[in-house]
Amino acid sequence: MAIILSINSGSSSVKVSIYQSSTQSQPPKQLADAQINGLTAPPAKFTYERGTERVKNQEVKDVSSNEDACEYILDHLVKDEGLSEIPSRDDITHACHRVVHGGDYPDAHVIDQETYHHLEDLTDLAPLHNSSALAIVKACMKALPKAKNIAYFDTSFHATIPEAIRTYPIEPSIAKKNKLRKYGFHGISYAFIIKSVAEYLKKAESKTSIIALHLGSGASACAIKNGKSLDNSMGLTPLAGLPGATRSGDVDPSLIFHFTHDAGKPSRSSTKDLHISTAEEILNKKSGWKALTGTTDFGKISSSQDPACKLAFDILVDRITGFIGSYYVKLEGQVDALVFAGGIGEKGALLRTEIVEKIRCLGFELDQQTNNNIIEDVVRNIGQDGARHRTLVCQTDEQFEMARQCAVDLQSK
Amino acid sequence: MAIILSINSGSSSVKVSIYQSSTQSQPPKQLADAQINGLTAPPAKFTYERGTERVKNQEVKDVSSNEDACEYILDHLVKDEGLSEIPSRDDITHACHRVVHGGDYPDAHVIDQETYHHLEDLTDLAPLHNSSALAIVKACMKALPKAKNIAYFDTSFHATIPEAIRTYPIEPSIAKKNKLRKYGFHGISYAFIIKSVAEYLKKAESKTSIIALHLGSGASACAIKNGKSLDNSMGLTPLAGLPGATRSGDVDPSLIFHFTHDAGKPSRSSTKDLHISTAEEILNKKSGWKALTGTTDFGKISSSQDPACKLAFDILVDRITGFIGSYYVKLEGQVDALVFAGGIGEKGALLRTEIVEKIRCLGFELDQQTNNNIIEDVVRNIGQDGARHRTLVCQTDEQFEMARQCAVDLQSK
Repeated sequence: MAIILSINSGSSSVKVSIYQSSTQSQPPKQLADAQINGLTAPPAKFTYERGTERVKNQEVKDVSSNEDACEYILDHLVKDEGLSEIPSRDDITHACHRVVHGGDYPDAHVIDQETYHHLEDLTDLAPLHNSSALAIVKACMKALPKAKNIAYFDTSFHATIPEAIRTYPIEPSIAKKNKLRKYGFHGISYAFIIKSVAEYLKKAESKTSIIALHLGSGASACAIKNGKSLDNSMGLTPLAGLPGATRSGDVDPSLIFHFTHDAGKPSRSSTKDLHISTAEEILNKKSGWKALTGTTDFGKISSSQDPACKLAFDILVDRITGFIGSYYVKLEGQVDALVFAGGIGEKGALLRTEIVEKIRCLGFELDQQTNNNIIEDVVRNIGQDGARHRTLVCQTDEQFEMARQCAVDLQSK
Repeated sequence: MAIILSINSGSSSVKVSIYQSSTQSQPPKQLADAQINGLTAPPAKFTYERGTERVKNQEVKDVSSNEDACEYILDHLVKDEGLSEIPSRDDITHACHRVVHGGDYPDAHVIDQETYHHLEDLTDLAPLHNSSALAIVKACMKALPKAKNIAYFDTSFHATIPEAIRTYPIEPSIAKKNKLRKYGFHGISYAFIIKSVAEYLKKAESKTSIIALHLGSGASACAIKNGKSLDNSMGLTPLAGLPGATRSGDVDPSLIFHFTHDAGKPSRSSTKDLHISTAEEILNKKSGWKALTGTTDFGKISSSQDPACKLAFDILVDRITGFIGSYYVKLEGQVDALVFAGGIGEKGALLRTEIVEKIRCLGFELDQQTNNNIIEDVVRNIGQDGARHRTLVCQTDEQFEMARQCAVDLQSK
């Protein structure tokens, strides 16, 4: 019997899902779900779900860091009498951590004092993305000495991207030394999506090819050929590719030097150990649809008639349809389905309508009825019967995917 | 009777084509062609063609700047007794200058002392690209006081790119102030290509839609819808999009900050008036297939079995096919032809083969016989009979296009 925590630590939030896994070959069973939001805008707020038991946005005091949030959640789990599976912290057997940048790691990685330093090294490549996860890993190693800590990387799924696609046309000696290549991200989500879609289509994963879109405040597109990542719109870091809530996505690589003369200087969020350039701060945190419209809420943007919102919407449609066309060709037209996922992909019926309208020439067509229904299944078909290619929505679940992989590894030992 | 010089001034070369235009509605007739190469690697070399008269790579002394080269060529033209149309410099009525970055100019622009300063302002946006043209403009204003100097911009053809495609998802107030948007380049070439292809297809230009590839040491792709530019792979500057001989093309916008800590510092080629960052120098001048293979000669790369050459070749194929897929969708599948142009596009039979093989799913197919023949016509069909879409090669001619537009403007006055 394993008790698995799946932990997703962001810059202002910590989300923890709690699973129980028996040794039988069944998927892990979710016991509870806890999260703390607003770490950067105190007071932080606590949300908890276990069966019918709910706490929603309860203000919590003295919680201002990811470590505090982790402690608060662990305390709550142990004290929750309805959660009989975790009478003490020692009953937690595994803590799975979502780590954005995994460098060359092709698989998940058990973290101990020794390997922790390897992860720290990676932070240089993605300081904006890895540091909050590392803070939690450190906290958990201390708070849960009996548990096995495992890092799951957003990059691992993309280890199969071929050399000609992952290589940048830059000086190879420096690329090699500084580990500069396309890595690709959102891989935990894409692993969930391809598995779920293959199951839905009753095909072997190794024979399933899709164009998947993980659209949230971070957004990316992925070409998956015979179950394996062929290309992803993100690059060396999650900045490349599609725009996000505060990310520019692809821009002319010289743009930032015309945006500010301080591009190369350290940003205000830099520390002695974390080097973040002003350029990276601007392009990651002060761009995207927030910069264009003033809000990060894409739902509001979709339903607004404001010209700035319309423009932000149209920009996203343009960039997404561009990647779909590109990936359709890279998959040589052998596409089992176009799959929408992520908060915006799952909820954005209007966005899906506009996108699929524009790719009609490739053989995609929506069924407006099912497109407009609320999606309840893990995978739902929203395509028109008789269209050349399927269009699906998948409710992706990165937390579950980590627990599932953790359980599979347990059983294979 | 007009005598038109079409001048293309690069960082190490000056090319001048000389045309005669009557007032009848006939295309300008080329009289001669002169160029000086190797300005940055003296001694410079002079090449001249007039009818059967040829000078090839003659070493010339005391020619080390674009201005020197211009003077040398003008002298040669006047002294060439076989060129009876130009007994003196005063017989030259028009000097057409290719200027890479035209900012918001939607059309060609007559340059006088006053408007020259507007062009200087644009140099801030594209110091690496505009400065050699401006040097020649200045030299010609002095050397040819009787001639009308006209700037033709690589950006003008792309003035029709829609807002959602040309807007970057960045802070709009700074974008507006600093004029940061997608401009697109190679527009003089694309104007020639769409006109020539429409003529070849016997269709109105305004009803002709193509995906055009200008592939040379600078390379770009262009979606042209009903005769007008819809999208171009280049951006704020020619750096974005496809890799080139020494350009990286699209890379993660944060890559350069992981390449060097000096990204934002002025490069060694900066001067008091021209601000070029180290990043721009590296990504424009020290990347691309030269960095990957050691040579700028794509012909050598194509025919080499060396793994580095194979990789550079495959990278270009991957990026080009990606843009074709993207533009196919943006044109909603209404594509009269895929058109290869530019030195590499016109000569690279193997590159064309590999690209078209990969886009077979969109309905493109080559006729290997015609693909392997040397292209002599302005436009040649290299597609397979019965394929859903045509594939063409177009021998683009930017110099002629400037003279043609100049002659059209003359006749309309």
